[in-house]
Amino acid sequence: MLSNDLEQLRQKLDGVNMELLQLINQRAEIVQQIGEVKEKQSINRFDPVRERKMLDVLTQKNNGPFENSTIEHIFKEIFKASLELQEDDHRKALLV
Amino acid sequence: MLSNDLEQLRQKLDGVNMELLQLINQRAEIVQQIGEVKEKQSINRFDPVRERKMLDVLTQKNNGPFENSTIEHIFKEIFKASLELQEDDHRKALLV
Repeated sequence: MLSNDLEQLRQKLDGVNMELLQLINQRAEIVQQIGEVKEKQSINRFDPVRERKMLDVLTQKNNGPFENSTIEHIFKEIFKASLELQEDDHRKALLV
Repeated sequence: MLSNDLEQLRQKLDGVNMELLQLINQRAEIVQQIGEVKEKQSINRFDPVRERKMLDVLTQKNNGPFENSTIEHIFKEIFKASLELQEDDHRKALLV
């Protein structure tokens, strides 16, 4: 009975993993598009004020179980990876 | 026109952030439930084989723009935070 529960919970977790994967990549695509617009306007891609604002909104809306500090940590990793992706795009654009 | 594009993309990004927040916490809840089942069965909460399997599935299904290494990195952070949450629950359970 219990291992049945475990199996069901794991299947649920696998489903959420796939949704997260899609959303994280969907977010990366939007960030790439933002990078392109900024490129045209010669705006700096890294915007710490905007990042801080996004983190504040996220922690305000956070109902747990993760602590705000954990949510901040995970999103900062996602932001960092997104910035690196924009920088790669920028380098590629310069090479073309 | 361009700053209009930027505004729209940012609104889209904010929407995805909220969806991610909900999914990350939903995932944490499932992990907590898994922790409870494992507690009853006295199974160790940390399961590196299962983690490796989840990462393999995620990178197999990854269509980018994030590289597999980035996806692995972000998910490892989520896994680590989830394990810490389970350990907190375990400590609290011992204190009751």
